[in-house]
Amino acid sequence: MLRTAARTLSRRVFRQTLRDFCEKVPRNLRVSEAISGAGLGKNVQIQGWVRSVRAQKANLFVDVNDGSCLQSLQIVASPEYNDPQLTFGSAVEICGVLKKSLHPKQPVELEAEHIHVVGECNPLDFPFKIKERHKLEYIRQFPHLRGRTNAFSSLLRIRSEAAWAVHSFFKENGFVQIHTPIITSNDCEGAGELFQIEASCPQNSEDDNFFSVPAYLTVSGQLHLEVMAGSFSRVYTFGPTFRAENSQSRRHLAEFFMVEAELAFTRSIEDLTKVMEDMFRRTTEHVLDRCPQDVDLFHKHVTPGHRDAVETMLKDKFHVVTYSEAINILKQSSQAFAFPTNWGCDLQTEHEKYLVKHCGMRPVFVVDYPYQLKPFYSRDNQDSPLHTAAAVDLLVPGVGELCGGSLREERLDLLKARLEEVGLEDTYSWYLDLRRFGSVPHGGFGMGFERYLQCILGVDNIKDVIPFPRFAYSCLL
Amino acid sequence: MLRTAARTLSRRVFRQTLRDFCEKVPRNLRVSEAISGAGLGKNVQIQGWVRSVRAQKANLFVDVNDGSCLQSLQIVASPEYNDPQLTFGSAVEICGVLKKSLHPKQPVELEAEHIHVVGECNPLDFPFKIKERHKLEYIRQFPHLRGRTNAFSSLLRIRSEAAWAVHSFFKENGFVQIHTPIITSNDCEGAGELFQIEASCPQNSEDDNFFSVPAYLTVSGQLHLEVMAGSFSRVYTFGPTFRAENSQSRRHLAEFFMVEAELAFTRSIEDLTKVMEDMFRRTTEHVLDRCPQDVDLFHKHVTPGHRDAVETMLKDKFHVVTYSEAINILKQSSQAFAFPTNWGCDLQTEHEKYLVKHCGMRPVFVVDYPYQLKPFYSRDNQDSPLHTAAAVDLLVPGVGELCGGSLREERLDLLKARLEEVGLEDTYSWYLDLRRFGSVPHGGFGMGFERYLQCILGVDNIKDVIPFPRFAYSCLL
Repeated sequence: MLRTAARTLSRRVFRQTLRDFCEKVPRNLRVSEAISGAGLGKNVQIQGWVRSVRAQKANLFVDVNDGSCLQSLQIVASPEYNDPQLTFGSAVEICGVLKKSLHPKQPVELEAEHIHVVGECNPLDFPFKIKERHKLEYIRQFPHLRGRTNAFSSLLRIRSEAAWAVHSFFKENGFVQIHTPIITSNDCEGAGELFQIEASCPQNSEDDNFFSVPAYLTVSGQLHLEVMAGSFSRVYTFGPTFRAENSQSRRHLAEFFMVEAELAFTRSIEDLTKVMEDMFRRTTEHVLDRCPQDVDLFHKHVTPGHRDAVETMLKDKFHVVTYSEAINILKQSSQAFAFPTNWGCDLQTEHEKYLVKHCGMRPVFVVDYPYQLKPFYSRDNQDSPLHTAAAVDLLVPGVGELCGGSLREERLDLLKARLEEVGLEDTYSWYLDLRRFGSVPHGGFGMGFERYLQCILGVDNIKDVIPFPRFAYSCLL
Repeated sequence: MLRTAARTLSRRVFRQTLRDFCEKVPRNLRVSEAISGAGLGKNVQIQGWVRSVRAQKANLFVDVNDGSCLQSLQIVASPEYNDPQLTFGSAVEICGVLKKSLHPKQPVELEAEHIHVVGECNPLDFPFKIKERHKLEYIRQFPHLRGRTNAFSSLLRIRSEAAWAVHSFFKENGFVQIHTPIITSNDCEGAGELFQIEASCPQNSEDDNFFSVPAYLTVSGQLHLEVMAGSFSRVYTFGPTFRAENSQSRRHLAEFFMVEAELAFTRSIEDLTKVMEDMFRRTTEHVLDRCPQDVDLFHKHVTPGHRDAVETMLKDKFHVVTYSEAINILKQSSQAFAFPTNWGCDLQTEHEKYLVKHCGMRPVFVVDYPYQLKPFYSRDNQDSPLHTAAAVDLLVPGVGELCGGSLREERLDLLKARLEEVGLEDTYSWYLDLRRFGSVPHGGFGMGFERYLQCILGVDNIKDVIPFPRFAYSCLL
């Protein structure tokens, strides 16, 4: 019995000791957690990178950011902690007690008891300077370091949250995510601007091609999605697509992300525009709600006033005009366009901009394009004399074309005739099979994810909304 | 006043008419919704593909599947609806009233009032036959149609749900998703099996390369993630990676998906193994919970008994052995191995299998590999005489290596020396910059997503767990 009592006692002592120990060992906390009030009054450890250092007579102030949010945590320490290694950009681990701050700008601050510089950062060599707001063009030159700037880290948190919102939207609406392939042996739109791929060390002297056939980087997951729409009814994909376009424009990349969706048993363009508009709204509302500070950085400092532009976009139901109406609007305009505005001509950026402006700087769907302008898979409206296809583009302020989509030709005879016309009947015999076996009316669309981010944030150059931009003559890292 | 009364009356009549109309217009319902009891007693429309037709004297039974779940909805109709076009694989739209079924196998059935065959399917030409359970090898030959089989549609629903679970796991744990690039100018591990890319129509006669430099398809997003770990502390990526490996094995693909994560302020392999194990458990539990029927199809019909294997894997904390211990286990084994088991040799598939079996068919982490076996970025443990690096592999039953990771060398002098040794100092000067400016101890890992699916489902061939497999001499569609 004595032994049991001793064991109970020692267990109690052990537990108390453990508790004492745990109270003293500081808990790791992320800056976002600390700022939201977790760990107030507790002994905590913060790990991150120094954003500013201010040595005053009585106190040393250090701002530490760990990328969990835009805000930095203010550290207050005795001046004796000032260390020449404690510079802008250096990595630190700081222990102390989290206290309510008296300063109105921040809710909490950390009273440091220990500051450890984990990694130095020579301010002379580091390309970013303390307290300076560098231009996006400048920071773009340092793809391996630009995540350390406020603007680009905000951008990437928004991008991550927007990607999550896109997945959530489709999941909630019963879509199955399909990982469509990057490498493909077909060239979706007959467009010439393809990247071809080959094993860098040929495996086998008998065969020139690793895959036996020429292989390319995908320009769209659409045809592969159509395969899967025939078994899941609703599918989507979200991943990189490629264009070997020799362009240095602020609107084009060689590698960019696309959200694409395909819906079976869909008979009208309205079925598609509804999903497109819902996706745009839900994603944007999610981002505005979850990343208020990060979004504000863009709406206040990068493109002042852009918040109002976004609110205008979201205010009413998106406009819908037919291509023919759009042509009439352009013809009636007093503006002198560089490109022709005849029925049958493709809409150019200048036309898209005019149409968006005409609609009060709100998103506008243009539907029913000339049949001859659209690829072989677009559904024939069989109208005359102005022969159109059931295709749609979504134009938005600042960006122009954000989404493109169409009903797909599900009628075997019409599709076959059109493929024969362009001599692609054999290449796409598998695609014709989809119309031979349980064909259904269906349609789909794609949205350029970078253009979406440009649109809601007001970022002018597409290179500033993707982690590692690839374009003609540039593939850094 | 009379006019107001008339208006009120007409409004009431209008509302009633609208209500009557809405009751009559059948509501579109997905099969999964119908089976879960939504719309019971209501007039609904189901759209999908016929999985079976049984004509009896009194009734016609049709099973319709729309890909929203494995189960089909049973349609009961008068025999007069039997139509030669109503065959296995045909697409149909069926209106009727959802009723409780008397049959124990299904909770509900649809009493059809209207059956419309939207798309025919000639049973002689269609490669899949009614009531036949085709082998995975057989259906693999029809990549554009295999989604219409039960096994492959279950697989893709599971894949979609597992992908969602992976994103959820990282989001809940404060990781930022980074879209690492597909096209890269660096070759992560100095491995030779790369795909090179080039514009298929050269843009410019003066320059041979579209990007000015040779460009490849990524073999890993790790280095790009390391860039971002230096600003967000925790980052992950989930996308395709590539190997130009001339292999027809059941374990290799030229294009496969990887989940990769990178954690800053990480000092021990245990920090990494904890995240790897948590991710494996959480994803698996999510899939078992959300896709019970789809998973059962594999666990009962494709690999009978595999459910027990999965439960064994999840039962206890994963094993951890050092590489040196693993070598001792192999040396003490009575099994004759084809490859040597000396300290310093890489573990081969036969060794991995033995180790997993030795640990009771449970996942096992092998840690602290010989320094010379691991790439330049692995952190030097600075031990002797057996010199190791802080690297880890996760081995799992059936598959072997599922994950690989390491602490990364964060010390500038050591990393620089090693890069000089292999002559890569200039190529990786940007990577050295990450150690020059605010370097922190960090580490990360990657998991092959297809191998993960093989592991939990018991699927032998990796080509059966990806929508469109690409491998040597094969790039269909």
